[in-house]
Amino acid sequence: MEVTLFLVILSGLVAVVYGAVTAKSVLGADAGSERMQEIAAAIQEGAAAYLNRQYRTIAIVGAVIFVLVSILLGPIVGIGFLIGAVLSGLAGYIGMYVSVRANVRTTQASATGGLEKGLDVAFKSGAVTGMLVAGLALLGLSVYFSLLLIVGYSLGDREIVAALVALAFGASLISIFARLGGGIFTKGADVGADLVGKVEAGIPEDDPRNPGVIADNVGDNVGDCAGMAADLFETYVVTVGATMVLASIIFAGQAFLPEMMLYPLLIGAACIFTSIAGTYFVKLGPSRKIMAALYKGFGASVLLSVFAFIPVTWATLGFGTEYSYAETVFTGFDLFLCALIGLAVTGLIVVITEYYTGTNFRPVKSVAEASVKGHGTNVIQGLAVSMEATALPALVIVIGIYLTYVLAGLFGIAIAVTAMLALAGMVVALDAFGPVTDNAGGIAEMADLDASVRDTTDALDAVGNTTKAVTKGYAIGSAGLGALVLFAAYTEDLNFFIQEGVEAFEGVVVNFSLSNPFVVIGLFVGGLLPYLFGAMGMMAVGRAGGAVVEEVRRQFKEMPGIMEGTQKPDYARCVDMLTKTAIKEMIVPSMLPVFSPLVLYFVVWAVADQSAALSAVGAMLLGVIVTGLFVAISMTAGGGAWDNAKKYIEDGNFGGKGSEAHKAAVTGDTVGDPYKDTAGPAVNPMIKITNIVALLLLAVLAH
Amino acid sequence: MEVTLFLVILSGLVAVVYGAVTAKSVLGADAGSERMQEIAAAIQEGAAAYLNRQYRTIAIVGAVIFVLVSILLGPIVGIGFLIGAVLSGLAGYIGMYVSVRANVRTTQASATGGLEKGLDVAFKSGAVTGMLVAGLALLGLSVYFSLLLIVGYSLGDREIVAALVALAFGASLISIFARLGGGIFTKGADVGADLVGKVEAGIPEDDPRNPGVIADNVGDNVGDCAGMAADLFETYVVTVGATMVLASIIFAGQAFLPEMMLYPLLIGAACIFTSIAGTYFVKLGPSRKIMAALYKGFGASVLLSVFAFIPVTWATLGFGTEYSYAETVFTGFDLFLCALIGLAVTGLIVVITEYYTGTNFRPVKSVAEASVKGHGTNVIQGLAVSMEATALPALVIVIGIYLTYVLAGLFGIAIAVTAMLALAGMVVALDAFGPVTDNAGGIAEMADLDASVRDTTDALDAVGNTTKAVTKGYAIGSAGLGALVLFAAYTEDLNFFIQEGVEAFEGVVVNFSLSNPFVVIGLFVGGLLPYLFGAMGMMAVGRAGGAVVEEVRRQFKEMPGIMEGTQKPDYARCVDMLTKTAIKEMIVPSMLPVFSPLVLYFVVWAVADQSAALSAVGAMLLGVIVTGLFVAISMTAGGGAWDNAKKYIEDGNFGGKGSEAHKAAVTGDTVGDPYKDTAGPAVNPMIKITNIVALLLLAVLAH
Repeated sequence: MEVTLFLVILSGLVAVVYGAVTAKSVLGADAGSERMQEIAAAIQEGAAAYLNRQYRTIAIVGAVIFVLVSILLGPIVGIGFLIGAVLSGLAGYIGMYVSVRANVRTTQASATGGLEKGLDVAFKSGAVTGMLVAGLALLGLSVYFSLLLIVGYSLGDREIVAALVALAFGASLISIFARLGGGIFTKGADVGADLVGKVEAGIPEDDPRNPGVIADNVGDNVGDCAGMAADLFETYVVTVGATMVLASIIFAGQAFLPEMMLYPLLIGAACIFTSIAGTYFVKLGPSRKIMAALYKGFGASVLLSVFAFIPVTWATLGFGTEYSYAETVFTGFDLFLCALIGLAVTGLIVVITEYYTGTNFRPVKSVAEASVKGHGTNVIQGLAVSMEATALPALVIVIGIYLTYVLAGLFGIAIAVTAMLALAGMVVALDAFGPVTDNAGGIAEMADLDASVRDTTDALDAVGNTTKAVTKGYAIGSAGLGALVLFAAYTEDLNFFIQEGVEAFEGVVVNFSLSNPFVVIGLFVGGLLPYLFGAMGMMAVGRAGGAVVEEVRRQFKEMPGIMEGTQKPDYARCVDMLTKTAIKEMIVPSMLPVFSPLVLYFVVWAVADQSAALSAVGAMLLGVIVTGLFVAISMTAGGGAWDNAKKYIEDGNFGGKGSEAHKAAVTGDTVGDPYKDTAGPAVNPMIKITNIVALLLLAVLAH
Repeated sequence: MEVTLFLVILSGLVAVVYGAVTAKSVLGADAGSERMQEIAAAIQEGAAAYLNRQYRTIAIVGAVIFVLVSILLGPIVGIGFLIGAVLSGLAGYIGMYVSVRANVRTTQASATGGLEKGLDVAFKSGAVTGMLVAGLALLGLSVYFSLLLIVGYSLGDREIVAALVALAFGASLISIFARLGGGIFTKGADVGADLVGKVEAGIPEDDPRNPGVIADNVGDNVGDCAGMAADLFETYVVTVGATMVLASIIFAGQAFLPEMMLYPLLIGAACIFTSIAGTYFVKLGPSRKIMAALYKGFGASVLLSVFAFIPVTWATLGFGTEYSYAETVFTGFDLFLCALIGLAVTGLIVVITEYYTGTNFRPVKSVAEASVKGHGTNVIQGLAVSMEATALPALVIVIGIYLTYVLAGLFGIAIAVTAMLALAGMVVALDAFGPVTDNAGGIAEMADLDASVRDTTDALDAVGNTTKAVTKGYAIGSAGLGALVLFAAYTEDLNFFIQEGVEAFEGVVVNFSLSNPFVVIGLFVGGLLPYLFGAMGMMAVGRAGGAVVEEVRRQFKEMPGIMEGTQKPDYARCVDMLTKTAIKEMIVPSMLPVFSPLVLYFVVWAVADQSAALSAVGAMLLGVIVTGLFVAISMTAGGGAWDNAKKYIEDGNFGGKGSEAHKAAVTGDTVGDPYKDTAGPAVNPMIKITNIVALLLLAVLAH
């Protein structure tokens, strides 16, 4: 066991070292002219200022919760929370740090080396973030787990369960703040700058005369990069952590418990290597198709993982050995198959998301075509596509649930999600690539480089829109499967406490049957959370965007030299103002999933009894995922489709840039912005937090 | 029992007679100038042509299903299906018939008697539709029920259950076709006519030079009036029918079974009278607020119903008598309280919907304000409002479920929904008022009447937007509560068959626990149906609108005299083309809920076993309502908010007509059209059909 844990920790370190080395290579690339570096510096400054302020605010909330958790569940659990929170923050920070430096280098590489070099720098910087996210997540889990064992806890102990849950909670809490705060910042800037710049003043996107332009580019980094990194870190930690928790509950007292708890960590460790190997396959082929290059890398990672899982499974569990819990019997080979199903689900979701958001397929083309008839029809078609886009992922998840459950019960589902998330390093690499190229384009525009540079970065950026949507589909899809794992952890935990005769659960009879009206109540209340949360997120972006509009208008009016090019706009003021707004706006929605399970529990307990309350909270966990899955997928896929429909028109279709169709497509893109970059992706950590708070509630009650 | 049934039938007849008398009074009103009558005749012709064609198509599908049901379940059940289908169609037809004649009379009344007379004629015509819907629904249920008893069936017989379910199925099937077909027609016309007329040609709404203008007005009648009437008829029949079915299952063999089956019918009968009485309270007060006048009538109906339920409950069940089934014990007074809770839920949903869609409150104003910043921000804010609007109704429903369940278990919930739907007559009256005033405005415009007439009809129309949203909120809210009743009927039915040892269910063990992965699978599959259905509906409107755009453009081009006013556009061609498109487009989505439960059942059976299949189908019933509730409320409330935000701007706020804000608001309105009038409301019958098909599936398996 010690050796295995050591290997896992080593793998985590390999990821970090890979990240550091690659980062050095990216930072060593040519950073371009003085003008470009000046622009990049403004973006760096703004991003750092925002993130510092955001983390200060989160730190206050985090400190309060740390104290609460430590008092209620003991310092060991509190420390778990702290580790999760700090590492999640760190993942986001590093993601931002690298991307604000890679952007200008991508511009320069595109200018001097064309598509090939641009892709190389941008993808490498994404890979840094990706491998650091995966590495830190694996390290956080395995090091803390090892320490707990070293200080004397044994595998079946409730403290280990509570500590792992708290670690996940810390990660989730930072993640929802980062996703939401970053999302509000980036889309507030985007919407605001576009509205006054493109529509009112008639200047192109990323024009340096637009006072909101630096804020827009800062937003890409703090939202799409830092926010996304924190989100995926959270998803990884929660999934792998929940799998370990489930193992420790359902296999408690069994001789093979250590193997079952290590298996998910080993899957993660194996995929570190396959992801790193995959990055070397990202090379522009003779077709010069960017997406194909990225797919080659992704496909290589998946394929290598299949082969990597063979020795991992064989050595840890053996292929033929039978294991069992309750009425489920499975072999090591069955778990291996579950891991493969996890990879297959990932692959299918990637393909489906690309279909719905790529410029080559019916959905995006249909949105572009609808733009010819006007703003309204563009939005109608976009909404229709967004809703349709939920069907296939939901079916894939359903089939995944069925197959893995048949193979190895609930634990089979958990292993499948673990395998999905194990590829997070590669997926984050594909995603982080997007904001870097988006920024690169902005810098090219602001530095007045040759149009061909912008064309190159635009081509990269269009692919970035799809990969961004892909990551979100992947994160939320894993949440769909993972919700069952978290729900299972909740029910198994509850059963454990009841059977152990823990005082707080005396006389409790949980009934999760759909015939129990409290279950229906829980489903409805859980179901409304993503809607309410989404509404709050959208409105926050509206307000933030409105504030930017006013500030930009004010600057245009008070400094007439801006438009003439004789006066420099006050970029910092926009950044500063947006920072304040975004941080203010992120607090309330982020607290929604934290308090909802607690409120539901106490209200139902007050009007009915504790059994009803625990049943309602359990049902709420599924309710939030049932609607959350659809809300999140529709928002992220729809937003991606709108964005690329605009790009498709800008490529010269249906009238091209400046046509009426283009204006309509800009409207759709604006609508899609908060959809895909604020509300939609934040639903993912929201679902997790609801689940984790419920698990912590049980732990607190039992403590 | 015979006497009571006789009284119920008599009440149904009273409603029909009231409808006939009021219709005569409406039709006796002055129909205005020759020009006005000419326009109205074109609308009448188009509406009748559409409805005839639609019914011919539905008849083919209906005939196939009639034969299938008759073969699979016997002729008695087949006849039930036929009655439901025919009466639902009749309700829609009458609704259309009255409103296409009341429209021009409302114009004339507004011209000669101002707001007061306009309101009078429009509301009366709505009341005709309303009372006929309620009356026909009550008659259908009670007459067929009586006939079944007369031919010798006794209360506990499965044939009665199956026959009532089939009656509901017939009603639902027509209703989904009518809602969807009518919705596609009306919004295709609306979107198409607006896009070319308002945006491209720059002519005002309802300008007679627009070749799509008659189609637009026809649409109001076949969609918002006939479609809505069929929908509410269906909701009534399904709810009251399901309550009777639930009673016959759970109280089987008990001495008080007859009373329990009659009680819902009596609630319906009592509300016929309170609704009729309520219509006399609709009078414009000194404040001249139209909404206040309508609320007076609605409030009076609610209040009178409270008093009417006292003797009904007392005479049928007695206040103190105790009844019981399984572990639930309740008194007649408890059921009385449940009925009052049903009324309270109705009232609260009306108030909440008005808040979210009325021009006097924050949500609509916020959408209007967001329009100032552009098309995109209007849509973002509208979407945010639409999502937020789901929270309070969901909470009201949750509280309703809790209170009624505590009082009298599942049957308590059923009685609450029955009381909600018993007021359908009044609610439909408020709703049908909308399309009539919308048409009246169109006729005023086309007949070139004085602007003051249009102002009057516009004031009525704005209120109509809110009442339309209110009805939809009410219908879908009742579905939220009603779903539990239908799900309960499904589970109780299943238990009955299993306990009776019916061969087809041998060895079946249903497990509706959320820990059963097949339940989760069912929830996800059910959850995706409203999304897929909504996507199909929205895309259909897009296509229909696109077809109208092309036709209108063609006419403008080929007949240059149209714009100069020397040539009459070919209105009929637009109507004809739209008729074909709408009918073609309505088929596939309407079949989705019919086939989904069957496909899920057979697929799960094939890969797992029958127990899993029946559990998955049961969970699907709740999954479809959990997401369906949110999808439908967000669509209907959001659409209403967009529409009234436009009206609010047209009233002179934020720049008024012709401003940039107005253009943005028109975009929002266009988006809201298929949201609120096609996809959103059709979700309601879709949910029911999924549930009913599942019930029929059980009956067929058992047969």
